[in-house]
Amino acid sequence: MKGLFITIEGLDGAGKTTQIAFIKEYLINRGYNVIVTREPGGTRIGEKIRNIILDRENEEMCGMTEALLYAASRAQHVSEVIIPAIERGNVVLCDRFVDSSIVYQGAGRGLGYNIIKTINDFATNYLEPNLTIFFDIPPEITVERIKASRQSDRLEQEEIHFHKKVYEEYKELAKKFPNRIKIVKADNTVENIKNDIEVIIKELLEA
Amino acid sequence: MKGLFITIEGLDGAGKTTQIAFIKEYLINRGYNVIVTREPGGTRIGEKIRNIILDRENEEMCGMTEALLYAASRAQHVSEVIIPAIERGNVVLCDRFVDSSIVYQGAGRGLGYNIIKTINDFATNYLEPNLTIFFDIPPEITVERIKASRQSDRLEQEEIHFHKKVYEEYKELAKKFPNRIKIVKADNTVENIKNDIEVIIKELLEA
Repeated sequence: MKGLFITIEGLDGAGKTTQIAFIKEYLINRGYNVIVTREPGGTRIGEKIRNIILDRENEEMCGMTEALLYAASRAQHVSEVIIPAIERGNVVLCDRFVDSSIVYQGAGRGLGYNIIKTINDFATNYLEPNLTIFFDIPPEITVERIKASRQSDRLEQEEIHFHKKVYEEYKELAKKFPNRIKIVKADNTVENIKNDIEVIIKELLEA
Repeated sequence: MKGLFITIEGLDGAGKTTQIAFIKEYLINRGYNVIVTREPGGTRIGEKIRNIILDRENEEMCGMTEALLYAASRAQHVSEVIIPAIERGNVVLCDRFVDSSIVYQGAGRGLGYNIIKTINDFATNYLEPNLTIFFDIPPEITVERIKASRQSDRLEQEEIHFHKKVYEEYKELAKKFPNRIKIVKADNTVENIKNDIEVIIKELLEA
């Protein structure tokens, strides 16, 4: 039996972490083996790369370096964790994946869709998620949430203009790949969000 | 006035460091501003990436991660150091560049020429050296030299079989790009090597 690969996308501060915990519980209660992981990171080497990417000290990092570091972390993650787990029949629940690179580096940094897609096709050996849930909440709200809760990392501390480009590109991607990417309105009560997620996950499991 | 970009290639233990010092001196004596740099590394961020790549502890690193980390370090190096120096009219002397990725990750790790070339075209924004000097010395000699002199890093400690593939690909590249890549027989006296280099550099400066 082959497993499933589910990715979670959205701006930082969109509430992904809370909802990932809910999805995990939901799947475990239905008898699935679930692996929760995240990008950048998810492996020993990937976490070292993550530290370089998110360190606020590295302000001189160019967009292409950033894009290649994300892809390097992802290549390790896919080969060491994600593919083996899927082959064992597990459900892999991943906080961010290729879509994040397309919106942050492709749109946010202006490197464009094609370059980011090509690099990541190599990095993932063309692995595609079975389902991607996009938590849709505008940057005006998420930026305030981050400010109120903790110190922001190198990407989070970008200007609102940057996060708007990222957000718009997320919505473009969701339009482009409606079969894979499902939108959950995240500016909503936790209960309503959970209900929306449940409908989406049920549909995937029954497919 | 535009500067020049010279890259130095060859197996570890081929004597690159000694000859780079000679080339630097030769160019300075003729009035050039010379910048000596190296890959992976050459920038603050690049040196952090270098540490991850070469750390012997990271033995589980997959070939694609390795290739993307080299490219990430290179993207930073090109945009922060190499291009600005060339535009100031300097001569940039770089220990390893894209050819190293083609031979080590493309051939050595078996990822192939096309993937490595594509990733690095993005990383370098298609920057090509004006001249590449390949120090030609077989791996049977260099591996013994490294063993005798210091602790090897993660790539140096690969089996002789790996270094043979790398060496053969270097020779293929030199055949493929005879205008750019000049071969210096490095299993030779230091004086003879210097003379060979002098002929090559003179030809470049007079072109």
